[in-house]
Amino acid sequence: MSTKRIAGPEIERLIQLLAKVPGLGPRSARRAALHLIKKKDQLLAPLAGAMGDALDKVRICSVCGNVDTTDPCMICTDARRDPATLIVVEDVSDLWALERAGSMNARFHVLGGTLSPLDGIGPDQLNIRTLIERVAGGEVTEIILAVNATVEGQTTAHYLTDQLAGFGVKVTRLAHGVPVGGELDYLDEGTLAAALKSRTVF
Amino acid sequence: MSTKRIAGPEIERLIQLLAKVPGLGPRSARRAALHLIKKKDQLLAPLAGAMGDALDKVRICSVCGNVDTTDPCMICTDARRDPATLIVVEDVSDLWALERAGSMNARFHVLGGTLSPLDGIGPDQLNIRTLIERVAGGEVTEIILAVNATVEGQTTAHYLTDQLAGFGVKVTRLAHGVPVGGELDYLDEGTLAAALKSRTVF
Repeated sequence: MSTKRIAGPEIERLIQLLAKVPGLGPRSARRAALHLIKKKDQLLAPLAGAMGDALDKVRICSVCGNVDTTDPCMICTDARRDPATLIVVEDVSDLWALERAGSMNARFHVLGGTLSPLDGIGPDQLNIRTLIERVAGGEVTEIILAVNATVEGQTTAHYLTDQLAGFGVKVTRLAHGVPVGGELDYLDEGTLAAALKSRTVF
Repeated sequence: MSTKRIAGPEIERLIQLLAKVPGLGPRSARRAALHLIKKKDQLLAPLAGAMGDALDKVRICSVCGNVDTTDPCMICTDARRDPATLIVVEDVSDLWALERAGSMNARFHVLGGTLSPLDGIGPDQLNIRTLIERVAGGEVTEIILAVNATVEGQTTAHYLTDQLAGFGVKVTRLAHGVPVGGELDYLDEGTLAAALKSRTVF
């Protein structure tokens, strides 16, 4: 497709744009485009419609940074959720992942990334000011820092712990350990050492 | 996402539809949806537009069965292509693949599948009648049966060879052999036997 035009510009453009969707590359974008064209009524039309709807309606929640079709989002307005517990995540995808796990009935705060001075991402580029404001509001008693176990994530966690020190809230983090269903043989030494250190009574 | 709603229905619907795109599953559909939402202006809007355009403009070529935005398609109306050589393929994706290889300046005919009596696909379900009509027109001198090297593809090739027998056209098929860049050790015996049988002078 790159060197020679073999179909109308609308089809070429569809393929080019599909190739930018994460999970699809140039090859699978062609396959996807052809599938969509073949399933015009069952898939292409509904998907084009759903994308248009998302374009019109998706908002960033001004309270927590989540994406939703309402502002504040469904989670922030959910009266059944405990407003005293706030789970801080890097990204909306992490929020979704924790919600799928479904074990905490808490509210969230989405940072929108991690501190990365080399990339020009300081505290002002993340949703940290709004987090401090929420905590200063006085309703929050525990903050769970559910950031990734990467260097950037942990740096961000330390920075937040410092910033939140004066507010008298409990700051916790996710446990390290063996993933459920995981095999020891495939785990790195750091995880195994952490799992040993945090061992619990059987 | 399946058990618990965590975002507005428009986002859920976008994820559900993206999961039906080949190459994306439920997990990557969530990732794709989030990426699209974040890149609203750079990706979601253009992609929604491209899908709308494709919906409006994509046609099936009434001559060869290709998909394009014009009917007849760009290939059928390309005056530089030799109208005497017709490459018969199962699917539009095969046409695209051969065009990318770009070594033949021929025209195409897309069958739309292979004969498969068990699935109720007989000659009438494929674009075979239109193929016979094109050949009966007298302009075609060679038919290259570029069907897959599968049982279904070969069955269809044999059927077509029978049907085309009376027209005095040369019917050829793609060569079997070692893929370019392929390692012998990873090839099946059938391919190796065919490559040996069809060996050429070095």
